[in-house]
Amino acid sequence: MYDFIKTDALSLQQELSALRREFHRFAEPGWLEMRTTSRIARELKNMGYEDILLGREVCRAESRMGLPSNEKMEEHYRWAEENGADEFFLPYTAGGFTGLVATLNCGDGPTVALRFDIDALGVNECGGEGHAPCDGGFASVTPGIMHACAHDGHAAIGLGTAKLLMKYRESLRGTVKLIFQPAEEEVRGALSIVEQGHLDDADFALGGHIFPTDKAPGFDVAVFADGGRGALATSKLDMIFKGKAIHAAIAPQEGKNALVAAAIAAQNLYGIPRYSSVPTHINVGRFTAGAGRNIICETARLEVEVRGATSEANGYMEERAIAIAKGAAQMTGCEVEVVHMGGAPAMENSWPLAERVQRIAQEQGYSATALKSMDGGSEDFSYMAQRVIARGGEATFFSLLTPCAAVNHNERFDFDEAILPVGVEVFVSTVLELMGGK
Amino acid sequence: MYDFIKTDALSLQQELSALRREFHRFAEPGWLEMRTTSRIARELKNMGYEDILLGREVCRAESRMGLPSNEKMEEHYRWAEENGADEFFLPYTAGGFTGLVATLNCGDGPTVALRFDIDALGVNECGGEGHAPCDGGFASVTPGIMHACAHDGHAAIGLGTAKLLMKYRESLRGTVKLIFQPAEEEVRGALSIVEQGHLDDADFALGGHIFPTDKAPGFDVAVFADGGRGALATSKLDMIFKGKAIHAAIAPQEGKNALVAAAIAAQNLYGIPRYSSVPTHINVGRFTAGAGRNIICETARLEVEVRGATSEANGYMEERAIAIAKGAAQMTGCEVEVVHMGGAPAMENSWPLAERVQRIAQEQGYSATALKSMDGGSEDFSYMAQRVIARGGEATFFSLLTPCAAVNHNERFDFDEAILPVGVEVFVSTVLELMGGK
Amino acid sequence: MYDFIKTDALSLQQELSALRREFHRFAEPGWLEMRTTSRIARELKNMGYEDILLGREVCRAESRMGLPSNEKMEEHYRWAEENGADEFFLPYTAGGFTGLVATLNCGDGPTVALRFDIDALGVNECGGEGHAPCDGGFASVTPGIMHACAHDGHAAIGLGTAKLLMKYRESLRGTVKLIFQPAEEEVRGALSIVEQGHLDDADFALGGHIFPTDKAPGFDVAVFADGGRGALATSKLDMIFKGKAIHAAIAPQEGKNALVAAAIAAQNLYGIPRYSSVPTHINVGRFTAGAGRNIICETARLEVEVRGATSEANGYMEERAIAIAKGAAQMTGCEVEVVHMGGAPAMENSWPLAERVQRIAQEQGYSATALKSMDGGSEDFSYMAQRVIARGGEATFFSLLTPCAAVNHNERFDFDEAILPVGVEVFVSTVLELMGGK
Amino acid sequence: MYDFIKTDALSLQQELSALRREFHRFAEPGWLEMRTTSRIARELKNMGYEDILLGREVCRAESRMGLPSNEKMEEHYRWAEENGADEFFLPYTAGGFTGLVATLNCGDGPTVALRFDIDALGVNECGGEGHAPCDGGFASVTPGIMHACAHDGHAAIGLGTAKLLMKYRESLRGTVKLIFQPAEEEVRGALSIVEQGHLDDADFALGGHIFPTDKAPGFDVAVFADGGRGALATSKLDMIFKGKAIHAAIAPQEGKNALVAAAIAAQNLYGIPRYSSVPTHINVGRFTAGAGRNIICETARLEVEVRGATSEANGYMEERAIAIAKGAAQMTGCEVEVVHMGGAPAMENSWPLAERVQRIAQEQGYSATALKSMDGGSEDFSYMAQRVIARGGEATFFSLLTPCAAVNHNERFDFDEAILPVGVEVFVSTVLELMGGK
Repeated sequence: MYDFIKTDALSLQQELSALRREFHRFAEPGWLEMRTTSRIARELKNMGYEDILLGREVCRAESRMGLPSNEKMEEHYRWAEENGADEFFLPYTAGGFTGLVATLNCGDGPTVALRFDIDALGVNECGGEGHAPCDGGFASVTPGIMHACAHDGHAAIGLGTAKLLMKYRESLRGTVKLIFQPAEEEVRGALSIVEQGHLDDADFALGGHIFPTDKAPGFDVAVFADGGRGALATSKLDMIFKGKAIHAAIAPQEGKNALVAAAIAAQNLYGIPRYSSVPTHINVGRFTAGAGRNIICETARLEVEVRGATSEANGYMEERAIAIAKGAAQMTGCEVEVVHMGGAPAMENSWPLAERVQRIAQEQGYSATALKSMDGGSEDFSYMAQRVIARGGEATFFSLLTPCAAVNHNERFDFDEAILPVGVEVFVSTVLELMGGK
Repeated sequence: MYDFIKTDALSLQQELSALRREFHRFAEPGWLEMRTTSRIARELKNMGYEDILLGREVCRAESRMGLPSNEKMEEHYRWAEENGADEFFLPYTAGGFTGLVATLNCGDGPTVALRFDIDALGVNECGGEGHAPCDGGFASVTPGIMHACAHDGHAAIGLGTAKLLMKYRESLRGTVKLIFQPAEEEVRGALSIVEQGHLDDADFALGGHIFPTDKAPGFDVAVFADGGRGALATSKLDMIFKGKAIHAAIAPQEGKNALVAAAIAAQNLYGIPRYSSVPTHINVGRFTAGAGRNIICETARLEVEVRGATSEANGYMEERAIAIAKGAAQMTGCEVEVVHMGGAPAMENSWPLAERVQRIAQEQGYSATALKSMDGGSEDFSYMAQRVIARGGEATFFSLLTPCAAVNHNERFDFDEAILPVGVEVFVSTVLELMGGK
Repeated sequence: MYDFIKTDALSLQQELSALRREFHRFAEPGWLEMRTTSRIARELKNMGYEDILLGREVCRAESRMGLPSNEKMEEHYRWAEENGADEFFLPYTAGGFTGLVATLNCGDGPTVALRFDIDALGVNECGGEGHAPCDGGFASVTPGIMHACAHDGHAAIGLGTAKLLMKYRESLRGTVKLIFQPAEEEVRGALSIVEQGHLDDADFALGGHIFPTDKAPGFDVAVFADGGRGALATSKLDMIFKGKAIHAAIAPQEGKNALVAAAIAAQNLYGIPRYSSVPTHINVGRFTAGAGRNIICETARLEVEVRGATSEANGYMEERAIAIAKGAAQMTGCEVEVVHMGGAPAMENSWPLAERVQRIAQEQGYSATALKSMDGGSEDFSYMAQRVIARGGEATFFSLLTPCAAVNHNERFDFDEAILPVGVEVFVSTVLELMGGK
Repeated sequence: MYDFIKTDALSLQQELSALRREFHRFAEPGWLEMRTTSRIARELKNMGYEDILLGREVCRAESRMGLPSNEKMEEHYRWAEENGADEFFLPYTAGGFTGLVATLNCGDGPTVALRFDIDALGVNECGGEGHAPCDGGFASVTPGIMHACAHDGHAAIGLGTAKLLMKYRESLRGTVKLIFQPAEEEVRGALSIVEQGHLDDADFALGGHIFPTDKAPGFDVAVFADGGRGALATSKLDMIFKGKAIHAAIAPQEGKNALVAAAIAAQNLYGIPRYSSVPTHINVGRFTAGAGRNIICETARLEVEVRGATSEANGYMEERAIAIAKGAAQMTGCEVEVVHMGGAPAMENSWPLAERVQRIAQEQGYSATALKSMDGGSEDFSYMAQRVIARGGEATFFSLLTPCAAVNHNERFDFDEAILPVGVEVFVSTVLELMGGK
């Protein structure tokens, strides 16, 4: 057991809470974490970090999925200027180049990548008493945007981890990369970091997520079991059908009805033959089409996601979904464009590393079980894990369990902040073991 | 020929243009013609009209179709207050009670109802040179709302007609009802006027519409021929499907997918068996459904219209459409509500009255042909005609033909204002013949 | 008036009835009119016709649509052998080469083609009293096959016409072609006769059809009016979807479901945008798919027909229908083959010739009205008319009206045989006028 | 180990093969096992069985699912008369009352039910060399019907078991019920036996099935493991849509299109939301609809099956499927009837009994593994197991593994007959242990 880490981490409680509340208050969605990125950079700079990559060096520009419009990015940039962004670092984020990678070089030894995601969600935070962010005065200032998935906490844990690693740097052998990732929601950001090459030299990669628990005593860690089923592979697809508008009562035969193409596709997407060996899922979450009641629809958009317990099953679903979109377009004489708005492979897990995290957590006093299945959602750390494992390294992902006011993504979501130093403790202890020895 | 009417009408040219331009500039869509109604009332009052019904006396409250939301109505009311509405008459229009009925009682004799529609359209008026309203400084001040169907002209013609009838009132025997109707676009308003009883005592009903012509010399009149096919019957239906939202990957079987219900309905609405004897049409103009990509959709809305060359054929289409919506809901365990957002029967025509209008127009110097078919759209004056004819009266509808800059409903639509006194001339001459004799 | 023709035609009544009853009793469907063809050839031979084309010289082999299987053709050939076919002529019909063209050459002058169709329908003739063919002992000997559309009468009229023309051959100047056409039902045969070139030298082409009438005195003729709407253009399409069979519960993702492809197509075929200017129709009459309940379907067949009041509208429907089939196949990973099983253009009419037939019929004592619309079905004589008119000739089609026991295609259909000499009279009188002068 | 049972069973090899080949040759599908039933009864009678229930006493008449038509049953009865049925026993089977229950009463003690299914499949047996039934002269005499799932072998094993149990009857304490069940294919027969009460007094129920194996030495036994997933629950549904026929081009709006209703249903059945916790399946195996190309279809039939790894999941699928059928009918104005053509719950397993069978098989010299999953198909022995377990008894099902020429249900299926005495050995050994002790 690293007693000094527990002690040092606990001493950061107040500082971590303050950071988390600041991020919560100024919640920013994916690719718009402009204020957040600038503030994280400033904090790292203040801790003594000198090697901080920002802007276009973080995410490969063309690999960023599901970007907002330029108008939206410019508008938000102005908002960040007016809402406390760090003046020096903000300009790097223009054009949706958010996130950063800070490196701590401690001589020869392994390279360990730690990933912290920082974006908020498109959820309207509940108002009213009893919701801690409201009671505490740190509810989101932006209607419709909320940190309802604890990434505010992840960012704070990342900064706490950075602080202690800097403190212990003399004991470390090797290199630590602190990756503050944008746009994890809807699995849009990790691919662009991986394709920029940031994981190519990593021997180990670690990621974690705050999740609710009902168990006493309240704080715990869970690793991903050997051979267990982690996050699902997923693809987020927008299907945009283009037809030809025409007055519906005058010469309908001259139109091409994009609404009908999309309706045919939507209906049949749900009928993709069930993959027999592992679970798969599909959903058409949104359908928006048409301009006027008496006009044959020119443009229709479907927002679709497929998932699979394996990357292969997900690939099968995606391939069939695209064939359905194309066939539906052909049936109606329309065109269709399928845009990848996000995606992630199924989560791979290096059991030796996971077991090590489990043991370390147990030594630090947590029960730290190994879970066969972790929740059923998707998580794009899987791109990082995939790259590291493919190059012979090890990667794993763990849960930080704490009492929560509601489930993730709910408008009443909030978590017990006592988990923040626990997260720091687990990250730092693991890095120390990987890079320093006891 | 009534020479004096032609002379008097022509002398109103400047006044009619000014009124039309005012209405054009402060264009208001259906049920929001608050400023317009108040201004018409003030003009009529100034002419000496005393019997002016306003507010809840005009349209039967529960028969108004396709009303905007209360928020929209309140917001627009404030806009009208700030944009030159008549302070005295404006309050009558609160809550979407627009339109008015002015009566000129001239003793014993027939009752003649004249209808003028006054609402604008949801079209964004083109900017730039060459568009007369821009060049003349009377383009719509409200983005997205435009008088692109000449109802600004109809309102001006109504006021010119009112003025001359008041002038000639000593020559008249009977009663004139001047109906300024709201919400003709999407055929939403006429039914509520008919159901309020305003046509129940009418012996004659007349309506007219400005349409483009390519023929020289530019101004003409066209009546609806004996047995010809006029405006189509139509029903405007919103279909709102309600299901049950649930995370799409966790327990999809507990959801009820409103998006799928709507997609099934949309696809099959187009497949209603073709009515064999007369043309019918159907369109699903808009489809909006869903909240998030990974949520099974809770609410979906289809904006649908059916049309038929006869009211019976239209009724058949509507009945089948509703059955399809209900069946699609049942297939997915959803509920569906079908709301009538507008509607009109097929246009009936009293040939004796139409022929009379034709002859009068010819006597006034117009070629005044009788058209077998008038355009193929829909027009809710048909409700008024239906009521008057059902009670033994006569009704007809005629076109006022004039050079236009573009087709109706186009963002560049504009008409030659020289048609305004022509409209006044035809209405007034016909009333004089019906009520006075030469 | 040609008195002698009326007299001669009437004298054939008994003979024509006997022939019609023989054809009725030994009813044969399209491309299997083997016995019928052989018997017609024998009769013509006995009348003195020497120029009789048979077998492969009649219909262009590869242009025959909707052929039965070889097994079916061979089986039926044996049936014909055993059921009174003419031994000499039967062999020409092997392989589905039914029908014949007999030519009567009478020196210089115009060429007049007369068309008589000879096939029966896939209808099961009703049994029991009150149905004349049963009462008279000439009901179809073949279950499921019946002359329910009077082509037995047309064949008899053709033979009567042949007999009188041979008798009057000295008065004729020019050439008569008597075309006994196979497979008119489902419009499968005429194209192959036209493509063999038989109409290329025709100056005039005439066809007729027995239809029911309620009017007294029972027998009449009706021609197709100038500019009227005759038979609809139509295409008969079989769509055969091929997928891949697999056990539905074991590895459904490895199958390709042809049944689903066909269901998608069927549903959307009905939704082809309504052609605005003229009526169109579509129907999927049969759907057969699948082998076993637990097998993903490998093969599915749709039997489809489209129709249009113009050939262009029909072509539009066909093109859209094929696009729908292809798109549905693509959606499911299947292949689709679209086979033309029949087809005909819209009927063209040479009014001068139609008027001539009308006048002649009137001179012979019939009221002979000109009908704006003839029934709404399809008729592949339209291929012949199209060819003749395209080459500068004239063509028309007329109805022979007579009391019938039921509508055409009904299992109780039967007609008053007194119409048979009327048909002969009209054909012969017209030929005499065209080729001989009074 | 029961040495004498192995010896006695092996001595039956020739006799069992002869019986199996007779049943194979005269293969009869479900509810038509008339000849087979009569021959089994005769064999049992010859062995000395006196308590043999036949005819209406075996299957509850109204619980029989998926019965053939009366015509088919009468026709087959005549076939059986002419093809070697036992004259005395055949009459009991008239009307589809096939199958029998023979009881061997051996005083006080437990009641043990053994189930042997006897029906053949709708498969056309392959001809030609290399297929043992052809080479050996015992291929099915009936085209389209084949014992391709080894029930011929099960019947032979049942008779061998009966013979040895009769031989050892003095050692037995209790009652043996030998149930020869009809119509197991498509899971149609077991329910009616259970509902007749034949399992209500059973303390134990045993069933077995011949399946292929690739493992040496060729013969083995496999039991169903504790908590393993056995046969899936399933429902076989026929959906019959009734509309209204009409000529498709004349008045389509008066028709009600059953083909379209079925196409909508077929397409959407595949889209039932995936059950999240356990696998489910659905298939529309056949679609037959329509009479003629130009007739709006009056009747359409879908042959559907749903499956679920639990009875609850299967019930969910069935409920949704029926809602879809009803909704599709409503959309088109049709009626729909859903008929249960077969069904079975998920297989339950009494692990103590299964373990006992495993141990006995091992003692007899087989490796006898316990399988977590048995094949993924369905098996209506599950109804019997369900009833026995519900009343406090034990039930299990085991596989008899042997080299086969092809997979079950294939037209080349054949099995190594050396498995027949193995089957007898396992059944008899187990009964001896349950009823006699060593």
